[in-house]
Amino acid sequence: MPKFQPVRGMRDLLHDDSEMLTFVMSKARETANLFGYREVITPVIEPYELLAAKSGEEIRQRMFTFKDLGNRTVALRPEFTSSIARLATTALKNEPKPLRTFSIGSVYRYDEPQRGRYREFYQSDFEIIGTSNPEADAEIILLTDRLMKAVGLRDYAFKLGHVGVIRGILSQEKVDEQTQNAILQRMDKKEFDEAFKLVKSAECISTLRGSLDLKTDDVFETVAKIESHVEGYCQAAESVKELKTLLRLVTEGGCPVKSVEPAFARGLEYYTGMIFEVYIPELDIALGGGGRYDKLIEVFGGEPTPATGVAYGLDRIVLEMQMQKVSMQNQKKRRVAVIPVNETIRADALKVAQLLREEGIPTELEVMGRKMNKALEDADKKKIDYAVILGERELKQKSVVLRDLKKREQSVVEISKLAKTILG
Amino acid sequence: MPKFQPVRGMRDLLHDDSEMLTFVMSKARETANLFGYREVITPVIEPYELLAAKSGEEIRQRMFTFKDLGNRTVALRPEFTSSIARLATTALKNEPKPLRTFSIGSVYRYDEPQRGRYREFYQSDFEIIGTSNPEADAEIILLTDRLMKAVGLRDYAFKLGHVGVIRGILSQEKVDEQTQNAILQRMDKKEFDEAFKLVKSAECISTLRGSLDLKTDDVFETVAKIESHVEGYCQAAESVKELKTLLRLVTEGGCPVKSVEPAFARGLEYYTGMIFEVYIPELDIALGGGGRYDKLIEVFGGEPTPATGVAYGLDRIVLEMQMQKVSMQNQKKRRVAVIPVNETIRADALKVAQLLREEGIPTELEVMGRKMNKALEDADKKKIDYAVILGERELKQKSVVLRDLKKREQSVVEISKLAKTILG
Repeated sequence: MPKFQPVRGMRDLLHDDSEMLTFVMSKARETANLFGYREVITPVIEPYELLAAKSGEEIRQRMFTFKDLGNRTVALRPEFTSSIARLATTALKNEPKPLRTFSIGSVYRYDEPQRGRYREFYQSDFEIIGTSNPEADAEIILLTDRLMKAVGLRDYAFKLGHVGVIRGILSQEKVDEQTQNAILQRMDKKEFDEAFKLVKSAECISTLRGSLDLKTDDVFETVAKIESHVEGYCQAAESVKELKTLLRLVTEGGCPVKSVEPAFARGLEYYTGMIFEVYIPELDIALGGGGRYDKLIEVFGGEPTPATGVAYGLDRIVLEMQMQKVSMQNQKKRRVAVIPVNETIRADALKVAQLLREEGIPTELEVMGRKMNKALEDADKKKIDYAVILGERELKQKSVVLRDLKKREQSVVEISKLAKTILG
Repeated sequence: MPKFQPVRGMRDLLHDDSEMLTFVMSKARETANLFGYREVITPVIEPYELLAAKSGEEIRQRMFTFKDLGNRTVALRPEFTSSIARLATTALKNEPKPLRTFSIGSVYRYDEPQRGRYREFYQSDFEIIGTSNPEADAEIILLTDRLMKAVGLRDYAFKLGHVGVIRGILSQEKVDEQTQNAILQRMDKKEFDEAFKLVKSAECISTLRGSLDLKTDDVFETVAKIESHVEGYCQAAESVKELKTLLRLVTEGGCPVKSVEPAFARGLEYYTGMIFEVYIPELDIALGGGGRYDKLIEVFGGEPTPATGVAYGLDRIVLEMQMQKVSMQNQKKRRVAVIPVNETIRADALKVAQLLREEGIPTELEVMGRKMNKALEDADKKKIDYAVILGERELKQKSVVLRDLKKREQSVVEISKLAKTILG
């Protein structure tokens, strides 16, 4: 039989890659716990209709869609928010508000594979449902900051915006919602001329165009400029006020925002309020982003429910950690290899290995029946800290030889004192 | 829009269910680390041909199979072993042996849903590849024991067998492999009469039938009985010898085996040596099982490579933990709710919350703008330990009110001493 490879666009995560991903996942769980978010595990397979409802044409066409054996049209989730909105209208409907949930897992999109982009990738998703207060928006940004710190990243920054600024201007000019969506999508891709072609009023175009040049190095100054720029557009002005409150809360909470951009749009149609991204300015790569979506839960048949949330691209975070050569702070425990000199004492070797594990010491037993030199060489290659060598003579004295593979020193140690000696 | 439900056979894991599942997963990772197994994360979507190659007709027909947008026939993995065997013949081919890997994730089978059985479920899988020594088999059983202890289960037991006993008898009678598979499958379902119809020799049938009655309460006695029963069948005798060595190693390693069953078969065709299950005797539910599969990696185009492994049903482990009312030993940290008396001090509340989180204290901020009584009531419902109440008067003194929600006592505490006071 020929050898198999992963399906195109899929990949295996091995060694440091898998350990770094699970490290990031564990930090997401820690962060969730610190902020009071509880994990929900939703299925990878969801009804196609659910996932298609609000995801936008682009994502819809790239979903892994198929019929199950019961002839149901299903798809693999391309993101988490639809599943969480489903829960918020059903199983979690009567939970006390605010509902704070988080999820971690794989999502699926049939994109053209390239470096760092696969058709199966990992996201973590945090949502706070049931409040329209700006503290909730601030919390989502602050926990993002916390997670970036927890995984050890440096040089990341926050970009902040509010879809209500541009939408407010457009609404006042009576531009319908669908056209607004088209305009925002083009603005998000920086296709401004294309975007403005969709607007009729010359005055409105001039206001929109003017809003692009308001960015300064000082975010509070930028917000002040936007505020005076949209004077007279009441929905837009209200949005700027919200942005200002949020900016103040986030800054006071210890998270510096690098830029406020009035024309920043984040593609997704369901945002209704603040939007943000955490990114690496040097590379312009977003590691995560989100925003407020006060209408989505209604769309899924629930009561009108304000909500705000964020999704992180865990693969991108791992890539960036590797670029920054971040070392994981866990697994610093000393590791041990237990090596019997011959097969007749394999049961003793096994017992000693068990004893060390009982004390929490990561212990690999030599199970290849290799010669001592070969086994020691291998332990060295694996950067194991200690070899515990079992010989018949020492065993009679209830002792073993403990060899420090880093210092290349060894001594005879009683088995009863072995774990303590290793743990130092 | 109508409300959506999960696809039939799928489910959401909420609250304790999700937390218990991730707890079990974290214990699987801890156990892996203690025994020197490294995590590999393989795709949920694999080539259909890979997954179909050795999974047996029953599983093959129940796979979620479909064509991706590139017209590739793919399927969702129904188990992990095929993916690991794929890796062992490709990306991990040149790794030093033994290769110790583990995986955790969701697998998919289109079975009829019933209590505790879903079409998406969770497994963890440990494999040790590259050695035929019995220490490796013992290690797989001992780490199973360790994992069961780590999650806090009681009253589980081990059942041990060796497919070489029955196969050895059949081979000597020149029964071909395919017929052997059919016989073993029927014996596994305890359809003995059906099974024996496939055997021609009356003497052979009598030997097989006789092997069913050899079980005693003492496992070493059982093995001795099997040993004398298969005298003259040399492959079977060799298998019993292996079983005996393994039984001794496992027992010396501190893991008591409850029963040895010569006719125990575990369905899967790829086993070549010892097989085992960890189960709850009272309910006859297997929580995990595995065995030696020395030919599988060859089938996937690799060099002949001996291997042994185990898979756990994590959902079943969670169910059993809930039956046994096992409490998770983590998350014993004191939790705090931070509540400002009014909106004007929301930024201060946010800062205090951040400060507590910096000290590792799980802290929920009141973001609903609720009245104090309502917020306190809610914190109480959520079994939060402390409320930190921010009022303008106390803030002027750089202090807050700390209320112990269990003892219903409160006192004014300086913000700088708050974390320390809560941590005790």
